Amino acid sequence: METGALLTDLYELHMMQSYHALGMQGTAVFDMAVRKLPEGRNFLVAAGIEQVIDYLTGLRFTDEDLGWLDNTGKFSSAFVRWLADFRFTGCLDALPEGTVFFGDEHVLRVTAPIAEAQLVESRIINLMQLPILVASKAVRCVLAAQGREVIDFGLRRAHGAEAAVLGARACFLAGYSATATVQAGQRFDIPLAGTLAHAFIQAHDSEEQAFAAAARTCPGGCALLVDTYDVPRALDRVARLALHLREKGEGRIDAVRIDSGDLAAQSRLARGVLDQAGLGDVRIIVSGDLDEHRIATLVGEGAPIDAFGVGTQVITSADAPCLDCAYKLAEYEGRPRRKRSAGRQSWPGRKQLYRCRDDDGAIVHDTIGLECEAVQGCPLLEPMMRDGKRVCPDATLAHLRQTLRTQLASLSPELLGLGPARALPVHISTGLRALVEEVDRHFP
Amino acid sequence: METGALLTDLYELHMMQSYHALGMQGTAVFDMAVRKLPEGRNFLVAAGIEQVIDYLTGLRFTDEDLGWLDNTGKFSSAFVRWLADFRFTGCLDALPEGTVFFGDEHVLRVTAPIAEAQLVESRIINLMQLPILVASKAVRCVLAAQGREVIDFGLRRAHGAEAAVLGARACFLAGYSATATVQAGQRFDIPLAGTLAHAFIQAHDSEEQAFAAAARTCPGGCALLVDTYDVPRALDRVARLALHLREKGEGRIDAVRIDSGDLAAQSRLARGVLDQAGLGDVRIIVSGDLDEHRIATLVGEGAPIDAFGVGTQVITSADAPCLDCAYKLAEYEGRPRRKRSAGRQSWPGRKQLYRCRDDDGAIVHDTIGLECEAVQGCPLLEPMMRDGKRVCPDATLAHLRQTLRTQLASLSPELLGLGPARALPVHISTGLRALVEEVDRHFP
Repeated sequence: METGALLTDLYELHMMQSYHALGMQGTAVFDMAVRKLPEGRNFLVAAGIEQVIDYLTGLRFTDEDLGWLDNTGKFSSAFVRWLADFRFTGCLDALPEGTVFFGDEHVLRVTAPIAEAQLVESRIINLMQLPILVASKAVRCVLAAQGREVIDFGLRRAHGAEAAVLGARACFLAGYSATATVQAGQRFDIPLAGTLAHAFIQAHDSEEQAFAAAARTCPGGCALLVDTYDVPRALDRVARLALHLREKGEGRIDAVRIDSGDLAAQSRLARGVLDQAGLGDVRIIVSGDLDEHRIATLVGEGAPIDAFGVGTQVITSADAPCLDCAYKLAEYEGRPRRKRSAGRQSWPGRKQLYRCRDDDGAIVHDTIGLECEAVQGCPLLEPMMRDGKRVCPDATLAHLRQTLRTQLASLSPELLGLGPARALPVHISTGLRALVEEVDRHFP
Repeated sequence: METGALLTDLYELHMMQSYHALGMQGTAVFDMAVRKLPEGRNFLVAAGIEQVIDYLTGLRFTDEDLGWLDNTGKFSSAFVRWLADFRFTGCLDALPEGTVFFGDEHVLRVTAPIAEAQLVESRIINLMQLPILVASKAVRCVLAAQGREVIDFGLRRAHGAEAAVLGARACFLAGYSATATVQAGQRFDIPLAGTLAHAFIQAHDSEEQAFAAAARTCPGGCALLVDTYDVPRALDRVARLALHLREKGEGRIDAVRIDSGDLAAQSRLARGVLDQAGLGDVRIIVSGDLDEHRIATLVGEGAPIDAFGVGTQVITSADAPCLDCAYKLAEYEGRPRRKRSAGRQSWPGRKQLYRCRDDDGAIVHDTIGLECEAVQGCPLLEPMMRDGKRVCPDATLAHLRQTLRTQLASLSPELLGLGPARALPVHISTGLRALVEEVDRHFP
């Protein structure tokens, strides 16, 4: 999903041109921080860093881009020529994917010549926001499912192609067992899962025929959709077919899927019918506008469900489809900077996030402090790129899932719950507070 | 933004393999319909058809795709070989982009051999949902702005690259004047607009220096951001600089942008300072989490604002980030089909949407009827593709914007308002009702 250097805001190019014309080549430090947690989230999950590294590594203006820029009449020829050799030569520090974080904290820091660090603002936020949103909601579904499988069914309702594929990755990072999105499986080696659509059932002259055809043509086992016409009747048909297949040794029915109606009642009905027929190994998958709250309710009611197919609500992070985040200049040419815009103040200087844990490893509080300051706690931002090159090890998705699982174990039950929790304390170091005062004295 | 044939759900491929194995090559008719309007929308705007045509026209499995599918072990070699020659050979009928439509109505119909029509389900919904959502919210901003400019600032908060670019297109279709997303300008010839970021101001040792540098390096005129430190002080600096530039004949300040705080009060302050300095031609742009309601309030208060920069709320359709839509089989091999799943029933048969207007051209009601039926009103779905080839004329975005403007003129003030309105009546034809009964008798 190559998107190119022109996936940026016009003002980034305007500013680059000005920096270039002014000879401003100093090093800038930018932070991407989330100002506050969205309602309905007690913590967020860092995600999308891998894609940011890919983007920065491959960043080039193609001849076509340059010709087009030249033709707009908005840019000088000298600037356009300079862009031909443009590369990202800077440094990237970030929270490793799967790290949990909280409001006011920064997830990423770019240190680079200012024109480079400026250009990448728009795309970095665009690349990071969705994976963070999706991972942070998906993990709530995984927690609510209490060990039952959760499967990503999000492609169709994702906001475009990239959201679908990166969203599927974020779901898997959060602990889902599989995705239905084939391209995500292909690109990230995520296990794929899929059943049948109503259309398959409807295209046959009867439901019995459709079920038999599905079983015959999916010799590896199939999941039958039972709510096209009438669920109880469909379940009887599944049971008869499964027994028939077992007798003949011809194929297998793995699961039934229920996609509408009262999922608790229908899953109980399904379990009853299947068990009575000796089909205890046929699993029950449910779907249909599920989110963490509906999953928790179904689990709480003891509904005999083996897997939840979750799409729309998570892939769009429907209850919080955007993050209040920003990418802000914190230092230029070694001098700290901050903005003071009403309600949108930013922290100056080269910062680090420090995490304090108790003796059992539980997170007690975080501190936003200066990198050069002695602050209690473990630093969280890690080097990802130096001089335009990746320096962090390749991490498999399996490894990132493990990072997140470990982190979850260090959160209190209250933060892990679906209801609102008291915020984890995030302190500001004395060094950082002093720096704010100093910067404000210089910029009246 | 080539995304390929594997941007689909696994179950589409499962079903295709089954159709192939079963020799099911009959023609299927699928409708994509929106079940009901999201809250906060009195009508929707059709958008994204152009991208669906591109997708269907270019649909191929590459050698890499085929090799990968083969390696999954999920598909027979015969099926994978068959996919090598796969093309979309069917027909597409749809509402032209810019058409307004209502709940329960279908925006698109695919008529094709069932395996083809099935494969494309996931991506068609994925491609259409976001442009419909964005255009339908963007048009509310345009209406609220009452002739003032609205500019798309959505890239950073869009859900990924494709959402940003297709969202920018949908905003322009809805009547925005420009976008900040360079790639959308490049790809769709949308006018570009952009100002400065806070970082540019902060990178200079003083705000005066920053403003002067921006003016010097943007000889075509620039928009200065005035809320980095202190708005009143910044406005005085802008006024002094503008007068100085005017005296020297050295560059021009086009506009100021206010991005935080009380936008009504600050725009009044800005207008006052600028007018008093004889700078009546310097425009005022505001931004900062705007949506149609905030725009309406600002316009209602008489805030002297010339342009609204709108990002997050529209590009994510934040108050309604998903559509309750579906792509459902309506006919197979000439026989009508429907599903009856609880709360998700679909309409059978080859249908058309008929729109009735009064003598002044105002829309009175729509009717969902059968294509072969005599129904009062003008048919709305138009042929877009036949036998896999585009048959509709190329339509420029300028033309689509005009389509929408004309349609808006035929909606009642109540439907055009931002508050909830009585729904426009959508009738079901007698022919369609009779067909439902007939189908249900056949599928007990």
